[in-house]
Amino acid sequence: MQIDILTLFPKILEGAFESSILKRAIEANKFQYDLIDFREFAHNKHKKVDDYPYGGGAGMVLAAQPIFDAVQYATERKQSKPRVVLMCPQGERYTQQKAEEFAKEDHLIIICGHYEGYDERIREHLVTDEISIGDYVLTGGEIGALTVVDSVVRLLPDVLGNETSAKEDSFSTGLLEHPQYTRPADFRGWQVPNILLEGHHAKIDRWRKKESLRRTLERRPDLLDTYLLDEEEQQILQEIKAEKNV
Amino acid sequence: MQIDILTLFPKILEGAFESSILKRAIEANKFQYDLIDFREFAHNKHKKVDDYPYGGGAGMVLAAQPIFDAVQYATERKQSKPRVVLMCPQGERYTQQKAEEFAKEDHLIIICGHYEGYDERIREHLVTDEISIGDYVLTGGEIGALTVVDSVVRLLPDVLGNETSAKEDSFSTGLLEHPQYTRPADFRGWQVPNILLEGHHAKIDRWRKKESLRRTLERRPDLLDTYLLDEEEQQILQEIKAEKNV
Repeated sequence: MQIDILTLFPKILEGAFESSILKRAIEANKFQYDLIDFREFAHNKHKKVDDYPYGGGAGMVLAAQPIFDAVQYATERKQSKPRVVLMCPQGERYTQQKAEEFAKEDHLIIICGHYEGYDERIREHLVTDEISIGDYVLTGGEIGALTVVDSVVRLLPDVLGNETSAKEDSFSTGLLEHPQYTRPADFRGWQVPNILLEGHHAKIDRWRKKESLRRTLERRPDLLDTYLLDEEEQQILQEIKAEKNV
Repeated sequence: MQIDILTLFPKILEGAFESSILKRAIEANKFQYDLIDFREFAHNKHKKVDDYPYGGGAGMVLAAQPIFDAVQYATERKQSKPRVVLMCPQGERYTQQKAEEFAKEDHLIIICGHYEGYDERIREHLVTDEISIGDYVLTGGEIGALTVVDSVVRLLPDVLGNETSAKEDSFSTGLLEHPQYTRPADFRGWQVPNILLEGHHAKIDRWRKKESLRRTLERRPDLLDTYLLDEEEQQILQEIKAEKNV
């Protein structure tokens, strides 16, 4: 997979590609990346990438030309048709399903603005996806681009080692994860639940299922609307609700 | 404001603090920050910060001791009581309202795990907030920490200059932003809407309000559930719905 990121602030992104799983995935040739400063593509003398909005108003707007030309440059280096992703607050909310969809692509081009709007013609005639990572205001698209890259790369074949498991995470199973404990069994007087120390695996599995359901019910009941409960889980959920009513 | 980030991968974060608005805000003394590698606080010989989960299973769990001690270290350097924020998929969904709440604090401590769970006693006895930036799986909390820092710092007094406006952004007004255009008026045959070129400010304002409402209705109708429409906006919304039914 090739991932190209168009940004005016490549420095924000560099460290992430030189650390942890992204670094290892690059070294193992699982993906290639390029940080493209689209200011280099501006045709005007001062390398200006933005201009005043038609119709007036505060703020500046990123012009179409440098971004169109930078995307064309990135596109022509690969044979396959790229997904061209615009990071913006007006975009579709990013989800794990979208990460799985992007992980199947050969070529992602991600466009990051920075505290400015985009000329609408970029949305209409250049990008294939507009993505927002959440309902909060950020100064630029760079953090969103890192979100997309990190969530996608960890899904590529053989990127995660044995020590981690993409399948068991929250949002992959559809439920929030159960509580975890490690040594010591007593930390400042706070004990690990006995059931985890006793070694009855069937009991531990049921306890974890129950605590996972309990946490999801308490914190994110909306996730249960789309989760398909099996028979045992339905029974456990009734238990939890009965306990709450005592 | 003091922002301390506990992480095993400070390099992922460094570039963001050395770029753009965060850099300027630090230079103007609007906030201070420290990246604290909590591995330095592990008492054991090999500086191990994680261990096997009680009860078995895949993956490792971040132990309580190094994180408790690093938070204590950060806490003792300031007089005020900190907000201690744990980045995790089980957390409360981050929103602009939460950013505004955090922006009023004197001291934020943000804890980033990395592809592992946290010992439950960290949640129960150390943190004040558990935060998730969205329903997707990331390899660590670092990108979430950057999300919190960026969204909070831009709300601090005098951080955003005149060229930007915190108040007019999407999620601050409650509606998605209207389309923006800048020069040229004709780009590759694609025209800027005439109304924006004609200079009738009242007409432009109404067009923008309408396009903002239209985009919100089409892409994020959920935002309209909580947005209080004034009389003009109610009328415009009826127009849009009528146009769709033609």
